[in-house]
Amino acid sequence: MDTKMYNMWLQYDSINNQTLREQYTEFFSKVRLIGNSEIFDSIKEELEIAVDKMLQQKVGWTASDDAKIVIANSSDWNIKAVEGLNEEGYTIVSNGNQLKIIGNSDRGALYGVFHLLRMMQMQESITTLSIKEQPTNPFRMINQWDNLDGSVERGYSGNSIFYENGKIVEDKTRIKDYARFLSSVGINAISINNVNVWEEETYFITKKYLPEIAEIASIFRGYGLQLYLSINFASPIAIGDLETADPLDGSVKNWWKDKVREIYDFIPDFGGFVVKADSEHRPGPFSYDRDHADGSNMLAEALEPFDGKVIWRCFVYNCLQDWRDRSTDRARAAYDHFKPLDGRFHSNVILQIKNGPMDFQVREPVSPLIGAMSETNQMMELQIAQEYTGHQIDLCYLIPQWKEVFSFDTYIQGEGSTIEKIVAGQIHPYRHSGVVAVSNIGNDENWTGHTLAQANLYGFGRLAWNPSLESETIAKEWLKQTFPQNNDVEQTILDMLMSSWPIYENYNAPLGVGWMVTTHLHYGPSIDGYEYSRWGTYHFADRDGMGVDRTKETGTGYTEQYEEPNRSMYNNLDTCPDELLLFFHHVPYKHTLKSGKTVIQHIYDTHFEGYEQVLGLQKKWDQLERVLDEERFNNVKERLERQRLNAREWRDQINTYFYRKSGIADEKNRTIY
Amino acid sequence: MDTKMYNMWLQYDSINNQTLREQYTEFFSKVRLIGNSEIFDSIKEELEIAVDKMLQQKVGWTASDDAKIVIANSSDWNIKAVEGLNEEGYTIVSNGNQLKIIGNSDRGALYGVFHLLRMMQMQESITTLSIKEQPTNPFRMINQWDNLDGSVERGYSGNSIFYENGKIVEDKTRIKDYARFLSSVGINAISINNVNVWEEETYFITKKYLPEIAEIASIFRGYGLQLYLSINFASPIAIGDLETADPLDGSVKNWWKDKVREIYDFIPDFGGFVVKADSEHRPGPFSYDRDHADGSNMLAEALEPFDGKVIWRCFVYNCLQDWRDRSTDRARAAYDHFKPLDGRFHSNVILQIKNGPMDFQVREPVSPLIGAMSETNQMMELQIAQEYTGHQIDLCYLIPQWKEVFSFDTYIQGEGSTIEKIVAGQIHPYRHSGVVAVSNIGNDENWTGHTLAQANLYGFGRLAWNPSLESETIAKEWLKQTFPQNNDVEQTILDMLMSSWPIYENYNAPLGVGWMVTTHLHYGPSIDGYEYSRWGTYHFADRDGMGVDRTKETGTGYTEQYEEPNRSMYNNLDTCPDELLLFFHHVPYKHTLKSGKTVIQHIYDTHFEGYEQVLGLQKKWDQLERVLDEERFNNVKERLERQRLNAREWRDQINTYFYRKSGIADEKNRTIY
Repeated sequence: MDTKMYNMWLQYDSINNQTLREQYTEFFSKVRLIGNSEIFDSIKEELEIAVDKMLQQKVGWTASDDAKIVIANSSDWNIKAVEGLNEEGYTIVSNGNQLKIIGNSDRGALYGVFHLLRMMQMQESITTLSIKEQPTNPFRMINQWDNLDGSVERGYSGNSIFYENGKIVEDKTRIKDYARFLSSVGINAISINNVNVWEEETYFITKKYLPEIAEIASIFRGYGLQLYLSINFASPIAIGDLETADPLDGSVKNWWKDKVREIYDFIPDFGGFVVKADSEHRPGPFSYDRDHADGSNMLAEALEPFDGKVIWRCFVYNCLQDWRDRSTDRARAAYDHFKPLDGRFHSNVILQIKNGPMDFQVREPVSPLIGAMSETNQMMELQIAQEYTGHQIDLCYLIPQWKEVFSFDTYIQGEGSTIEKIVAGQIHPYRHSGVVAVSNIGNDENWTGHTLAQANLYGFGRLAWNPSLESETIAKEWLKQTFPQNNDVEQTILDMLMSSWPIYENYNAPLGVGWMVTTHLHYGPSIDGYEYSRWGTYHFADRDGMGVDRTKETGTGYTEQYEEPNRSMYNNLDTCPDELLLFFHHVPYKHTLKSGKTVIQHIYDTHFEGYEQVLGLQKKWDQLERVLDEERFNNVKERLERQRLNAREWRDQINTYFYRKSGIADEKNRTIY
Repeated sequence: MDTKMYNMWLQYDSINNQTLREQYTEFFSKVRLIGNSEIFDSIKEELEIAVDKMLQQKVGWTASDDAKIVIANSSDWNIKAVEGLNEEGYTIVSNGNQLKIIGNSDRGALYGVFHLLRMMQMQESITTLSIKEQPTNPFRMINQWDNLDGSVERGYSGNSIFYENGKIVEDKTRIKDYARFLSSVGINAISINNVNVWEEETYFITKKYLPEIAEIASIFRGYGLQLYLSINFASPIAIGDLETADPLDGSVKNWWKDKVREIYDFIPDFGGFVVKADSEHRPGPFSYDRDHADGSNMLAEALEPFDGKVIWRCFVYNCLQDWRDRSTDRARAAYDHFKPLDGRFHSNVILQIKNGPMDFQVREPVSPLIGAMSETNQMMELQIAQEYTGHQIDLCYLIPQWKEVFSFDTYIQGEGSTIEKIVAGQIHPYRHSGVVAVSNIGNDENWTGHTLAQANLYGFGRLAWNPSLESETIAKEWLKQTFPQNNDVEQTILDMLMSSWPIYENYNAPLGVGWMVTTHLHYGPSIDGYEYSRWGTYHFADRDGMGVDRTKETGTGYTEQYEEPNRSMYNNLDTCPDELLLFFHHVPYKHTLKSGKTVIQHIYDTHFEGYEQVLGLQKKWDQLERVLDEERFNNVKERLERQRLNAREWRDQINTYFYRKSGIADEKNRTIY
């Protein structure tokens, strides 16, 4: 496929600006690659695609010293590694006569090339450059939640590009294109199967599937991504001959050692295992009265000789909670489980911790576990897939949400202990750390269902590379590459993107209380849907008020998991930020917010407003009808209409529910049913 | 299979009472059958099974006049039809020396034989008998909601006994046994596929499936049941070459005529079609701006030459209702649609009308449509499958509920116009009428999931035969045949059965308001589950009160569909029966019921009581541990524990929900969360 939808931000539109065209043409008349590897093959191929499309010319490859562009891995060129830059860093230096991209590794060189191509797509001059770049986060990873039957758990963009009908896809073109996209924004690792590992997927680590998985690994290798697999902790029983999966059992340890050796025979640079254990009915060490350090260390020992990693998800909670019991608090679970284990994990184990303590809600506080373990490697998990944020039907540009997380100051080592620094390994001396996210792609032509949701995949990569980038900067970069050069288009869509998360929050569950979604599906309102469930996700609304009391004095004590001053800030009704009020406190409907409004009036106002704002989005988008290609215009238009219906349902159900319960009328006397 | 679970009420336990044994042995030493048909083959076979099991002897077949038992169809014996009895009637006359079973048809003879076997199972003497029996209802039908993939819509007893993996089952033993059971309680018609006719099932009326369906028809024929098929109204498009299914289109009419002819080539006594049209997204005449008379008459014309029937379901409602709109009322739909069409239906069309205006809730008023059409054949539809009454996990003996329906006086032709008389065709001169029910069986070993749910299948048949039978009588009959002769067992289970519907109602949605169930699943509470849905099923609970106002003055006017004095009785808050109060009225929580309790206190009391009563059921059952066979004891024990958990969940969620909403404390200060 070679459509605008499909090409996402690698459109490589023809360059019409004559000056730039001449400049670029000149540079690409003589290009020298100093390097010889799968990655350099990818560099060559990508440049040929890009130059052909942008300039309708062939790259003039040369081996001579007078090349206009030189691309090299510093070690291949026998020059010193670029000083002050890590292994993945690169420089781009241009003096008008020659442009040099020098990476500290093949991968660094590749990233440099994509940087240059990005500049060209954004129509920037490349004659005078002095760029020095390196990623802030060592790990920049994607988790696919794809199943062998072709379905994608929490996938909203069609089916898997990896599997169909119980088999790995034969035609791997699309996997390669995915690798290109991921690499272009600096992603360096990927796990290719769902963290819920079902029966047949358990066999991924056997000869039945390893040859084909090795093929996929080799595709990603060419783009600098290491391949990981999600594994079933009970594999020794399920696919071995053992009767136990006890991590302290000698035969189990040996089984895994043999298994790992076998995997590395097929995939010499295999990344390692992603593990979801003891959560939502997945097996784990708890079955054997072992803890998660026992479980992960056992796997880590098997992987260590090969430099493999264990990525251990901290989404551990007792999903059999009883709604009658107000003292148990799912928000506490990850911290309560893992914090006491600090120091017990091997150096090649990395804990993967969701950004919030619950589960990717539209608004949550930052997980207090992040940074709370000084001697245990940590990665933060984000969700690009819009499970609770509109299923890629509703527009929700997530970068501003993630930016808030990154910039949150935990005070774990005094002021300035931001999440950004923690996951970058700058607060504690983590051996491994970084950011990982659940992918939002599938086999829809535009990859992401909603075309504008491509911005979230793009933005995740860019933010993982450099969390200091502004949301707006990222959006602009994406827009310039994705849509034709047109200031109106750019400004219109930029406005839409930047307003989208607040709009979604407006018509969703109010003030950080979360959930209120249709059970299982997680799209559309069902205010009591999870209220009497076993999932630990309650709002406790009664005729007087609502919210979850997580204070030290009268609640679950969750606030105690934060460092000061956050602890007091959240614990204290007067200082707790409005947007998280109901996450931390149970308050009367007439409680006055810092905004000056009562809680109930806030609910009414935001829900009426949210719907109106969606009408505004529709109006903005309609203005682009003649400017944009039909395919992408119609895709977004159709989604916006579905978003409108969703927003209307949220508005009316939330308002009616709380009016019926509180009996308090809307001050503005708008229609409530 | 030949287990106690499997054999339901045809246990044919060995007769231990010596006197009876001798008596029966004597009678069965010489048995003469005067008749030669598939049905007489079945009679022969059934007697051989029964006599072998009860008496461990072979039936002594004879052709001579000195037979001890003579079984005949009156016409075969060249005697007059038994006077005053309809075609399905029979007599059993015994003078000690000879016992004669004479049916007015083969079928009548078969029913007589099953009557005799029932008496023997109940250990009654058969020496002096003078029995005259005939069914009150001409139609006594079962609807299977089985799908070709083997699933059963709203099935709670395993998979289909008719289909598996997209095919009709090869081994039809179980179908034959099912025919035996149905016939033993007088069922004379069955439709064997789901009223929601999916893609592949649409082909049932083609050569692809007709040969095998003819085989099934012939099995049922042997037991006096006529076979019907549910059809897809859009068949002319789906499996024909037509571009329309418009019932007034000539080519459509011809297509159905040809189709019907083809079916009768395979099944000469084919019963006809069951049709669910224009409901819940099923196609129908509305698509062509035709009404339901047009739609059903077109099919009726095609079937008429073969004496085939069209059974047209009146479950028609606009399932896209908007919860915001309080003026639309799903309860009104069937009456509003069909009443104006009275007189326009062909004489071989029968309208199939659910017992209540909604959908088989634990408590509903009787549908005002039943009897409201004097010139249109009607059948009443009941649901043996416990869709809303506990999924055959919870014990719910439904006969008392159905008895209430049968004895309801509609006053449609003055006092005494009971439902019983209407569906029997005694009020209006219906050419066809009767009772039909959705089956509760599947391929679980005990057929019905919950072993005691067998009583509902048994009871439906008996009640369809004779609606005057008392619930308790039916239960006792079933018990004596199903469980070993033991007065304790009988009395204990009888108590359990007779108390079970009131218990279920106690912990369920209160006072006739209905629903409050988990969406789609229909098991377990979700009080707001359907409150903001499009299904027209609301309780409108707010902080002050609840219920649906269906009065003339301030509500939907649904009460107007009843005749006086029912109309006023329901419309008037003072005369509306407590158990239906919230079906007809929206009242404050502090409204005082006729019982003297407030609505809110009634809710608390019944829900606490319901749970305690389930504990009582468990206690009763546990007493039977040593008396009953292990298999059936354990089956029910396990179900009762699941029922307890369900009742607990209902109790706590309902009480908590209404306490949170009303703020009114329980007078007895019991635990509400």
